[in-house]
Amino acid sequence: MSAKSYRIAKIPGDGTGPEVVREAVKVLDAVAEKEGFKIEWVEYDLGGERYLRTGEILPAGVIDELRQMDAILLGAIGHPDVKPGVLERGLLLELRFQLDQYVNLRPVTLFPGVYTPVKDKGPEDIDFVVVRENTEGLYAGAGGILRKGTPHEVAVQESINTRMGVERCIRFAFEYCRKRNKKKKVTLCGKTNVLIYAFDLWERTFREVAREYPDIETDYAHVDAICMWMVKNPEWFDVIVTDNMFGDIITDLGAMIQGGMGIAAGGNINPNGVSMFEPIGGSAPKYTGKNVINPLAAICAGQMMLEHLGEEKAAQRVLEAVKRAVARDIKDLGAGKMGMTTQEVGDLVARYA
Amino acid sequence: MSAKSYRIAKIPGDGTGPEVVREAVKVLDAVAEKEGFKIEWVEYDLGGERYLRTGEILPAGVIDELRQMDAILLGAIGHPDVKPGVLERGLLLELRFQLDQYVNLRPVTLFPGVYTPVKDKGPEDIDFVVVRENTEGLYAGAGGILRKGTPHEVAVQESINTRMGVERCIRFAFEYCRKRNKKKKVTLCGKTNVLIYAFDLWERTFREVAREYPDIETDYAHVDAICMWMVKNPEWFDVIVTDNMFGDIITDLGAMIQGGMGIAAGGNINPNGVSMFEPIGGSAPKYTGKNVINPLAAICAGQMMLEHLGEEKAAQRVLEAVKRAVARDIKDLGAGKMGMTTQEVGDLVARYA
Ligand SMILES: CC(C)[C@H](C(=O)O)[C@@H](O)C(=O)O
Ligand SMILES: CC(C)[C@H](C(=O)O)[C@@H](O)C(=O)O
Repeated sequence: MSAKSYRIAKIPGDGTGPEVVREAVKVLDAVAEKEGFKIEWVEYDLGGERYLRTGEILPAGVIDELRQMDAILLGAIGHPDVKPGVLERGLLLELRFQLDQYVNLRPVTLFPGVYTPVKDKGPEDIDFVVVRENTEGLYAGAGGILRKGTPHEVAVQESINTRMGVERCIRFAFEYCRKRNKKKKVTLCGKTNVLIYAFDLWERTFREVAREYPDIETDYAHVDAICMWMVKNPEWFDVIVTDNMFGDIITDLGAMIQGGMGIAAGGNINPNGVSMFEPIGGSAPKYTGKNVINPLAAICAGQMMLEHLGEEKAAQRVLEAVKRAVARDIKDLGAGKMGMTTQEVGDLVARYA
Repeated sequence: MSAKSYRIAKIPGDGTGPEVVREAVKVLDAVAEKEGFKIEWVEYDLGGERYLRTGEILPAGVIDELRQMDAILLGAIGHPDVKPGVLERGLLLELRFQLDQYVNLRPVTLFPGVYTPVKDKGPEDIDFVVVRENTEGLYAGAGGILRKGTPHEVAVQESINTRMGVERCIRFAFEYCRKRNKKKKVTLCGKTNVLIYAFDLWERTFREVAREYPDIETDYAHVDAICMWMVKNPEWFDVIVTDNMFGDIITDLGAMIQGGMGIAAGGNINPNGVSMFEPIGGSAPKYTGKNVINPLAAICAGQMMLEHLGEEKAAQRVLEAVKRAVARDIKDLGAGKMGMTTQEVGDLVARYA
């Protein structure tokens, strides 16, 4: 019998993307060998460089090819010479939407030895997961502008929420919470007192789905309160479920309290299709090509991917290796402050894994 | 010549609202006497109690009376026996909208001696102001639900932004920044790469208005990044201008880093009409009637009101008195942790002022 093998699309993308993806690949290949499976990497040249060269953002056929993959590992999207929004919407959001990756899964975990900017909180306090809806809400791109450029201009932006979209996301949160098996609590983050249509649907659906999970405690908080508590009482959270826009905001705040963009990773999950994993920081043009960017976030994205593929033991190896590296070797998670190069961090984690 | 006199509407409201407003009134009356002006308080019985008693939220005629006042001091709105949203929308948001209080002004200032949950930051780092648009955006209440309660339900919530509304808010921010005369920088907080209609209008208007203020530096950041920086680099900010929903979120985060709801105050400003000042915490049912709630936020709201009325010297007195009290006497700003009662804090500040 031949070894198990995965076909993984690799999209290094822009800026520091290629540098961090290279290290993630190094680490994943190392654990694959140890655990006796194979990863076949299929590289896609997408991002700002290609757009500037050819005018193409997401060439025809690519989406269909990606659908055949076991997963996707993405570096970063965003180029200083391309108007902000073009690549984010044309590529990143387009992939999320077209591949129907309806959950953006963002663990917020403080590893021992990592600096958090909040006081009096340690790894036992900062350990929760945000389940962000990833295919609708304000990200639908719906809206328009009337009388543009005149004193009477009106700009409308619409948050579109469907029962189907909200329900599958909330159900994912409850399932994930049960599997996670920690505090067994799902908190809905919304703004029911102002967004009376959108969060009426969210709140009703949340209550209905919750009934199917009597073993799981539920809670609700307004998004403004959630932001305060993430700083003051992060230990209150286990799984937070929320819409696309609020999820975007609170996961960046989450990234900050867990140590910053050097370590924060996320997965764009379609449980019935192909999922995409990414470090959540950007393309960091100012550090590009300098061998100083922190690859741990990309490595952690790879770790999430292994878990998603069912390679639990390999995922565990990577997790332990990252923890060991941050606890013992890496001085600071910031770019240029690690006390070692991008490549050295990758080598180290590959060795520990 | 008789002393100058102001007619101020006082809306104690729900929960701990009356307790904190009482102390604010005490302090304001004390400084008024010292500075030789008078405050005539006109009390309005509005809020959950009245709603439960009479079914009325905002009785006819009240708005017209309020329009005649020099300003409004509000305690808190929200009652445990009233469905969430009813009083907030029917009273608080209704007042903001009807009185066209188009700016929600939220100073984020860490006073010496106050505990902030973020590391390595002091009063010199946490000193900025958020100018939040207060009459449109997602707060317009626009939207609807289709096929409610069915698997095909769709809920739409609309953010409505007008050139008029956005421009006056942005202009206020620049004017305020100039008057404030500190870092002389206005940062637009948005999400141009996703909310392509709403923040297209915001961004264009921001650029156009900025041209009239060549002495003021401008900056832009996405709301998710702003949240991170508020925790990690609050010293980067001077004046932040943003829409209603993002403003709601970042000002609560701001309240947290400046020491919490015990101290955070805001003003709902209509420069050509009547403005309303409030502590930004809620009605805190669990502390109601116990003489343990911190009245400093209400006192600071009163301080902002004095400034707004042009009573600079009186405002300065209150500010210095609050600073002295938190630096020397008050142990912790949390309810029940102050080391003194609500009344004692009011007495102390009134004495210092
Ligand atoms: C780049 C941007 C469009 C994206 C988002 O808003 O979703 C990013 O902030 C993220 O969170 O992955
Ligand atoms: C009570 C609520 C409607 C209100 C808001 O969202 O504006 C509050 O959070 C605030 O910030 O004043």
